[in-house]
Amino acid sequence: MKRIGLADTTFARVDMARYARRALQAAGTGFRLVTRTVPGIKDLPAACRALFDSEGADLCLALGMPGRAAYDQTCAHEASLGLQWAQQVTGKPIVECFVFEGEADTPAALEALARRRAEEHALNAYRLLFRPHELSRRAGEGLRQGFPDVGPVRRVI
Amino acid sequence: MKRIGLADTTFARVDMARYARRALQAAGTGFRLVTRTVPGIKDLPAACRALFDSEGADLCLALGMPGRAAYDQTCAHEASLGLQWAQQVTGKPIVECFVFEGEADTPAALEALARRRAEEHALNAYRLLFRPHELSRRAGEGLRQGFPDVGPVRRVI
Amino acid sequence: MKRIGLADTTFARVDMARYARRALQAAGTGFRLVTRTVPGIKDLPAACRALFDSEGADLCLALGMPGRAAYDQTCAHEASLGLQWAQQVTGKPIVECFVFEGEADTPAALEALARRRAEEHALNAYRLLFRPHELSRRAGEGLRQGFPDVGPVRRVI
Amino acid sequence: MKRIGLADTTFARVDMARYARRALQAAGTGFRLVTRTVPGIKDLPAACRALFDSEGADLCLALGMPGRAAYDQTCAHEASLGLQWAQQVTGKPIVECFVFEGEADTPAALEALARRRAEEHALNAYRLLFRPHELSRRAGEGLRQGFPDVGPVRRVI
Amino acid sequence: MKRIGLADTTFARVDMARYARRALQAAGTGFRLVTRTVPGIKDLPAACRALFDSEGADLCLALGMPGRAAYDQTCAHEASLGLQWAQQVTGKPIVECFVFEGEADTPAALEALARRRAEEHALNAYRLLFRPHELSRRAGEGLRQGFPDVGPVRRVI
Repeated sequence: MKRIGLADTTFARVDMARYARRALQAAGTGFRLVTRTVPGIKDLPAACRALFDSEGADLCLALGMPGRAAYDQTCAHEASLGLQWAQQVTGKPIVECFVFEGEADTPAALEALARRRAEEHALNAYRLLFRPHELSRRAGEGLRQGFPDVGPVRRVI
Repeated sequence: MKRIGLADTTFARVDMARYARRALQAAGTGFRLVTRTVPGIKDLPAACRALFDSEGADLCLALGMPGRAAYDQTCAHEASLGLQWAQQVTGKPIVECFVFEGEADTPAALEALARRRAEEHALNAYRLLFRPHELSRRAGEGLRQGFPDVGPVRRVI
Repeated sequence: MKRIGLADTTFARVDMARYARRALQAAGTGFRLVTRTVPGIKDLPAACRALFDSEGADLCLALGMPGRAAYDQTCAHEASLGLQWAQQVTGKPIVECFVFEGEADTPAALEALARRRAEEHALNAYRLLFRPHELSRRAGEGLRQGFPDVGPVRRVI
Repeated sequence: MKRIGLADTTFARVDMARYARRALQAAGTGFRLVTRTVPGIKDLPAACRALFDSEGADLCLALGMPGRAAYDQTCAHEASLGLQWAQQVTGKPIVECFVFEGEADTPAALEALARRRAEEHALNAYRLLFRPHELSRRAGEGLRQGFPDVGPVRRVI
Repeated sequence: MKRIGLADTTFARVDMARYARRALQAAGTGFRLVTRTVPGIKDLPAACRALFDSEGADLCLALGMPGRAAYDQTCAHEASLGLQWAQQVTGKPIVECFVFEGEADTPAALEALARRRAEEHALNAYRLLFRPHELSRRAGEGLRQGFPDVGPVRRVI
């Protein structure tokens, strides 16, 4: 029985973990979810450490929603680097799923984008743990999360 | 009995630790405060290390106030990355609470902003240690520290 | 028998690993390939860790294709730093092979660039493991991957 | 008997370590100085490591003077991050004292600024080791190094 | 008998290691050179690790020549940070010697600049290992590598 960690924030304006949880549960079995909610994205790397160290997670999904201000981009960059270090310190993977508020023009579009991206990253997390061959088979195919796949270059020609 | 570390600076123009301490003491019991004051924000990561290593802190709150100059933003970025490494080296959480002088137009507004943010981050630190379910319950609700909560996207619709 | 790790992504729009694999197999023998495909470039550092730790890789080739948006450059920067940390944590080399979509104007040019660069970086990976003297002999010669070599300064004079 | 490490550079245009040494010796006793001079600011993190590891330093003061060019700011940023890592790897504090050439308009002003900042950072280093309560007492008071203190916000009102 | 590591690249357009080697051999004895050539500057941190770990180097000189494009500056930044981590992981010094193609207007000027800088950094590497007092004696004297020394501020007055 593997354990998947879900780390999310109270700062985000969409409950992305709810969508991720459903997508994971629909994807298959063989895992148990462990979760931790923190205030903001900069707290996600430490949350993942807690999920790895105290909850025995084999992989974490880090869900966050940086705001529209320029400073939010700096925070997201720092959080991303923290997630990279956490992965190197633990040797375990963290799938980062960030949705920037500025990526969508309307609240409805933001909710929809956050939902799709959370679901698709959750599915990727599932594949990383249980079905790596599904990823290998689609290497170089221009897949996207939250937006339509762009496809491989060859098909465009 | 848990220990909460408070690290702050002589560079800051508001005694944010005083507000944080009161908010923590009002939040509940079961912890002891350990503190360290350093010159500037770049000294905060080492201060947190000292609080973790020598004072037995279980979590640190790092309080700082970068100035208005462009270089202060670089310093804040370096301090934030240092705080991320400190968390990964120790495996323990640090709640970063920075207030940029440029975020407020008047001294009174700066004092008020620093107070609110210190209090709200202190409360978050308390929840991380003692009431994680209060954070989980509010995942994705668009909470802010120092400014009014923006709320989740759905309510906006 | 050495092991060379190939890490690539489903985000990329060209199957760069296919080109890299052929170039490696044409270069010589004495190695076995181990592979891992992940969603995006930020997942490559953890993928290399898995190839080093679980698959016994002696060297990894990390293949990725960041998109055209400004944010993709930030992601590439974060991925590159993650690859640097992975190398320092493990003490083993990772050859980074990134092709930015914006480097080519047409799909055909992008496919050709990605192919050449993947092949040339693969050959470099092979030399690092098996023929280091081929690299030493060409130190300072202005070699490029994916574009024509610019040559050493002296020949230009 | 504590040991304070002084790391400085041949790149700097002011002998900041001389001012720092005098300020430390005037501040009190109970410590011995260990020193290392390196070419430039990027060499300071390794110099501090040598002072910690081979000379038994309990704290280091890293003195440097980046030039006026844009690239010097990048170098300073890299050096600062290196100093952050050195602190996290060793668990010991490094007080960074950088003076940018562009901060002063005339040679005399640069010499005066470098002197004041070196002296004030040296005094801070002394307090961190021997009189932490002097720092705690002045938390949030808007202290500066090399320039006049700006004071706390409340006094401004 | 100490060991000095020389790491360089096939990307560079000048054989900087040749100049560095001659300068080291002219500087004195008591050391043996160990070398490694890698494709580009981002491979230098891992090359230094190999020189430290497998070849027993006590210090490394990392020689590289980033190109003129904006992306080359990003690569140089990532390489520099990798070199900082390598130093902190190993506790040993790496002297970084980078020459940006854009620093010189003509091929001849670039060759001359790369030669002078490689020679002067090599001499600094020698001093760090064998004559640290030569560096200490010149602290704060405004020394430069590849360009004329600017001298200390006081002489300018």
